[in-house]
Amino acid sequence: MDSPAAQRFEACGVVALLTDFGTLDPYVGVLKGVILSHFPRASLVDLTHAVPPQDVRRGAWFLMHARAHFPAGTVFVCVVDPGVGSARALLLALDGGQAFAGPDNGLLAPALSPAAELFELSARPASATFHGRDILAPAAGALLSGKQPAELGRPLARAHQRLEFPRVERRGEAALSAEVLFADRYGNLVLSAYERDLAGGPALWELEIAGHKLGFSRTYSDVAPGELLALVDSYAALEVAVRDGSAVERLGLGPGAQLILRRRA
Amino acid sequence: MDSPAAQRFEACGVVALLTDFGTLDPYVGVLKGVILSHFPRASLVDLTHAVPPQDVRRGAWFLMHARAHFPAGTVFVCVVDPGVGSARALLLALDGGQAFAGPDNGLLAPALSPAAELFELSARPASATFHGRDILAPAAGALLSGKQPAELGRPLARAHQRLEFPRVERRGEAALSAEVLFADRYGNLVLSAYERDLAGGPALWELEIAGHKLGFSRTYSDVAPGELLALVDSYAALEVAVRDGSAVERLGLGPGAQLILRRRA
Amino acid sequence: MDSPAAQRFEACGVVALLTDFGTLDPYVGVLKGVILSHFPRASLVDLTHAVPPQDVRRGAWFLMHARAHFPAGTVFVCVVDPGVGSARALLLALDGGQAFAGPDNGLLAPALSPAAELFELSARPASATFHGRDILAPAAGALLSGKQPAELGRPLARAHQRLEFPRVERRGEAALSAEVLFADRYGNLVLSAYERDLAGGPALWELEIAGHKLGFSRTYSDVAPGELLALVDSYAALEVAVRDGSAVERLGLGPGAQLILRRRA
Repeated sequence: MDSPAAQRFEACGVVALLTDFGTLDPYVGVLKGVILSHFPRASLVDLTHAVPPQDVRRGAWFLMHARAHFPAGTVFVCVVDPGVGSARALLLALDGGQAFAGPDNGLLAPALSPAAELFELSARPASATFHGRDILAPAAGALLSGKQPAELGRPLARAHQRLEFPRVERRGEAALSAEVLFADRYGNLVLSAYERDLAGGPALWELEIAGHKLGFSRTYSDVAPGELLALVDSYAALEVAVRDGSAVERLGLGPGAQLILRRRA
Repeated sequence: MDSPAAQRFEACGVVALLTDFGTLDPYVGVLKGVILSHFPRASLVDLTHAVPPQDVRRGAWFLMHARAHFPAGTVFVCVVDPGVGSARALLLALDGGQAFAGPDNGLLAPALSPAAELFELSARPASATFHGRDILAPAAGALLSGKQPAELGRPLARAHQRLEFPRVERRGEAALSAEVLFADRYGNLVLSAYERDLAGGPALWELEIAGHKLGFSRTYSDVAPGELLALVDSYAALEVAVRDGSAVERLGLGPGAQLILRRRA
Repeated sequence: MDSPAAQRFEACGVVALLTDFGTLDPYVGVLKGVILSHFPRASLVDLTHAVPPQDVRRGAWFLMHARAHFPAGTVFVCVVDPGVGSARALLLALDGGQAFAGPDNGLLAPALSPAAELFELSARPASATFHGRDILAPAAGALLSGKQPAELGRPLARAHQRLEFPRVERRGEAALSAEVLFADRYGNLVLSAYERDLAGGPALWELEIAGHKLGFSRTYSDVAPGELLALVDSYAALEVAVRDGSAVERLGLGPGAQLILRRRA
């Protein structure tokens, strides 16, 4: 990475944080204090700290869908790290003008393009249990202060830990099986299928759920309050919702449930 | 609006966010990423994201009471939007040196003065379900970057969607009926009555509750721990609390409950 | 305090907030609005707002352990204040290049060194129930704007309200008793003992718990998923955890529980 690229992080100053720390404890605040100690002008943004404890997949999904909405020059500090203190590496990745610091456990992987440059951070931690504070936050601070990535670690040629999400499976001629990935705050069920999986567009498909066939609506208010609907969400993923209600409560479905999408006859 | 007024938003740089997104998902982070993509120097403040899902009234109450504590030049981005994707308009309002972006469903209405200038945002959204990300955040970013409101939408002459809170009702000569609006984090019950409704001052009034007559205390520590009290809260609204405890748990009352205020004999 | 010291706060601009306000209500947002009204360039950081309501001890523990991770020039605004409106003073403390504003109820005490300079804030509040908004936030804003502490209150010579945490008690020759202080978000139990209490180092000690003797691990991944472990946490405090699980749920222990540490034979 050449000097102008390093200057981009300093000029942008945005640091986005994604962790499973929750907000009961001051762990997130401490991360921020460390970053500000290195670079007081940082503009700190919480992506979310409510990743379920140790749920690397959920964190990875969020990061993958959120990064495009942040400016070039953003540094993402990502900590969902059940292997803290073990031999797993800590990564710094540069990709598309943004930087990503996190454990090498798949958390960053789905968000990165094949062109990402990878470094293994070489700092030694002060503690065995809080590498976010001891290594990742200082690395972000150093990057913002104009340090080159190669000063912070050694380039990695080999691929890092991968993580892939379930997608869709063909079921015969005109059907697909998709998986519920998780529920959001509204009780909407997010599926492993995207709009692009529905050949010809959502209007040609319906979702089989709880004994019903459900066509795709454009938005929540296309159905009456309390009614179930399927739609394409703001990430272009397929979603099952209840207008002004909770699909989780209505259907009793959770992560891992399989649903069938069928092309209309 | 003339150019100096537009410059005020850029100079202030404060954006306050009020949503029902919660903090489980990265929706709030994405809103912030979009704003920072337009204006990286923005100073982002969370007003709250814990408005109960779709509870436009609660959001409106919070905004109405909070705006006075923010500096001139603040841009409020407000998203409690059960009608997302329907024909409801998206508004930009200028009032008292501050700006407000949000859906035309009453969310902004109680906070605005009769002198507010209104615009209907004209941007077309990329999604049918996340207009906060697609329209409101970009509008805030554009305003901060020096765009004129008239470049973002057309002026509205007609009054937008109204929303009014229950207030007090007279009950005979010297009594008022007030409604519980909601409970706060401490379990304090916030009423629809204000200090100014108590002719002669709170010392002349008492609240009938759970078979007791309760005079007004000045602050929580005026009663013993565990005791019930009525007081004027920091917004000048009347409140029922339990010192070092929860009035919700003690009384089993919630939104909509009616309480009688009676002038002392 | 001389002028260069006052300039430090302005130059740093970091304000860290610690409260028991939660995030359901806009109280934290209002605090921030007030600070930004005084000093729009402030960089606001949430230490935590999830201190259990009125739990001064928990807040004090968090502040004591977090402050070292923030830059010189940071202003901490701390509000866990069950005595709001009573005769308790509001303090401004200067210590080690950082400033602390909060009630005189012990909240600040454990974080401060004996060399801290203390002032009693002299402003009169607008409300009887929200001194954070009316006095503490404006004091922080004034400090950031270059005001001298002596302009904000009168110097205090006497010691302010103290607060001490339980530590360890000797039990015979080679044993200590420690107390569970609280559980963190992961269900890890934080003890009142520190690494330095274990003469010769943690390897020479074991913890008696639920009928078992537990040696100290270095990190969570030193044991199999689901296994109980004792370790030194990132604050150098002793902690009991379950790998990829919750020690609270496993053991049913909470604050106040006594545990025995015994030197290996």
